Amino acid sequence: MRQGIRQDTLPGRRRKPSRHAEGSPIRAGEDALVEFLKDRFPPKKPALEKGIGDDAAIWRPHGGEGLWAVTTDMLVEGIDFRREWTAPEDLGYKSLAVNLSDLAAMGAAPRFFTVALALPPDLTGRWVRRFYDGIAECGDGHGAALVGGDLSGGGTVVVSITAFGESGDGKVVCRSGARAGDLLYVTGTLGRSAAGLELLRQGATHPRAAAQREALRAHRKPEPRCAAGAWLARSGCVRAMMDISDGLSTDLPRLCAASGDGAGAGMDAEVFPERLPAFAPSSLWGCDPLALACDGGEDYELLFAVPRARRKRLLATYPPDLPAVTHIGNMVEGRGKVWLVASDGRRRPLPPRGFDHFAR
Amino acid sequence: MRQGIRQDTLPGRRRKPSRHAEGSPIRAGEDALVEFLKDRFPPKKPALEKGIGDDAAIWRPHGGEGLWAVTTDMLVEGIDFRREWTAPEDLGYKSLAVNLSDLAAMGAAPRFFTVALALPPDLTGRWVRRFYDGIAECGDGHGAALVGGDLSGGGTVVVSITAFGESGDGKVVCRSGARAGDLLYVTGTLGRSAAGLELLRQGATHPRAAAQREALRAHRKPEPRCAAGAWLARSGCVRAMMDISDGLSTDLPRLCAASGDGAGAGMDAEVFPERLPAFAPSSLWGCDPLALACDGGEDYELLFAVPRARRKRLLATYPPDLPAVTHIGNMVEGRGKVWLVASDGRRRPLPPRGFDHFAR
Repeated sequence: MRQGIRQDTLPGRRRKPSRHAEGSPIRAGEDALVEFLKDRFPPKKPALEKGIGDDAAIWRPHGGEGLWAVTTDMLVEGIDFRREWTAPEDLGYKSLAVNLSDLAAMGAAPRFFTVALALPPDLTGRWVRRFYDGIAECGDGHGAALVGGDLSGGGTVVVSITAFGESGDGKVVCRSGARAGDLLYVTGTLGRSAAGLELLRQGATHPRAAAQREALRAHRKPEPRCAAGAWLARSGCVRAMMDISDGLSTDLPRLCAASGDGAGAGMDAEVFPERLPAFAPSSLWGCDPLALACDGGEDYELLFAVPRARRKRLLATYPPDLPAVTHIGNMVEGRGKVWLVASDGRRRPLPPRGFDHFAR
Repeated sequence: MRQGIRQDTLPGRRRKPSRHAEGSPIRAGEDALVEFLKDRFPPKKPALEKGIGDDAAIWRPHGGEGLWAVTTDMLVEGIDFRREWTAPEDLGYKSLAVNLSDLAAMGAAPRFFTVALALPPDLTGRWVRRFYDGIAECGDGHGAALVGGDLSGGGTVVVSITAFGESGDGKVVCRSGARAGDLLYVTGTLGRSAAGLELLRQGATHPRAAAQREALRAHRKPEPRCAAGAWLARSGCVRAMMDISDGLSTDLPRLCAASGDGAGAGMDAEVFPERLPAFAPSSLWGCDPLALACDGGEDYELLFAVPRARRKRLLATYPPDLPAVTHIGNMVEGRGKVWLVASDGRRRPLPPRGFDHFAR
């Protein structure tokens, strides 16, 4: 699951009162709806190795050597993007990138994808061609080929992409493998995309400063960490992995819950705020870099757990041309909570303030 | 590609003037946009056996024994369905059925699917559960398992499903294999779903007559011809196959064009109107059964070409528990046109009057 632009940046959508009946899965938020679906559709196919609830589902074709992964993401105009802020090629690029990021989080190499597209009647052919130019740029850059799709009319633009990838040697990493004592790492920088979104809110669509351009680019054309994900899955150094799409404070509890005993006991995580690879320049345009590193979504960096005994090997062998990895905290015994641990050792909870499609 | 409710049944959408620039792929219609995409994304993956332009894409996993097929379809509220006419379980059932029909058209057995769903805030949790009940009924009935998906907010309901199927022995049938002299067959009945849609337009949502209930059921819960498609693909009796989603008069020219020399020469088809398995009872509520058999969409029957020398074998071995097959016409030399041939031998063109998402 990934986030788009947060709903609270869209006028008229903030704190819209819920009209759902008591116990509604929508009212209870996206995670609760995923739980409902996991119960409703338990895995029962022998070829299916991982069903609902991870970044991607995993299956093994009969007689095949490797595993295949499939993931799907939908972007809705007005919820996940605004057409006036988004060039069509950027929308195409990002729509595919968020899917490839889910494959990267399992360690699967992208292979193919399909695109279903709803197009309002006011869209020009030029818009459609530019959209597919962005799709092609992202797909070509990561070895993924468009193989099919569907086209429909609609009142707003809706893009739904399904991407599938392959792990030739069958090595994939799920969210669920972390253990107490594991070290938590992230790739790249956190809060950069949210800093770019803040620039758009301030009307700075064509800034000159390099840091602002970098933030805008991260928001408009996020780079899925396919090569890093594939390397990490094959390294033997990683026990659990996911991508950070809805923000660290929302996604890390999901990794904690998945890695527990399955009966809701979960596991806690401790995060050292001073170690977070926050995007410092965003303070220049009024952001709090630490808050964005914790709660800002759409970075599409990888979050992964490394057994303590594997740390040295990871650092010694991680290729220098891949995005840098940073040790941000540790998995500890607990019940699914995430704590910020200050340098003086004091702990305070990190509440999930990331994106939930239905909670606002 | 499949159709939903025709746009011209929706108030305010009929003959909306196009505002697109000259040469726009949208203005030129869905088939032109598919052609644009085929040029823009030529197949280049060695594992990919069939890319854009057929009912499903086909690839062969490394080391795997069989072929895999993937297809995607999007249903948009107000274009493909109206919420006030559609129970949520029927919408769920149909959304999956139209995808499984594309797999059936290749002869692939359904295996997995993903569901991406945009939900307006006024939807209740009960609606969502009933929607997934319909999904589950269709999936369970055809051996397909939900393995993942995405959930988003939205102004209207949008359902985008991607389905994966397998041909264990690698026998699939494309649209492109027909030759002059082949016999054209269809499964089941044509025009039944459109007759059901007409009932809805007349306000007959809960009719008593058996024929009316049958028509409504065909419209609301179409049955993908998975078993027939798989049998036909394995029989060795079928050279080209597709499903009829947008109406015979729109889909048959696609089979003709795909089966030609690839340079636009195509091939013609002759259809004998008195042989069409039209849904006769629809005349009782004011429909023209023959017109609906030619132009009504959403029947999801299979259309296939049989070499003349294979006809006897087909008829002798076709299992009696599968939907009946009817010889409706022949493939002939030509340039991609479809002709209706009366019993006195006179030919008149059958213009494509089926569904195009962008032509109206």
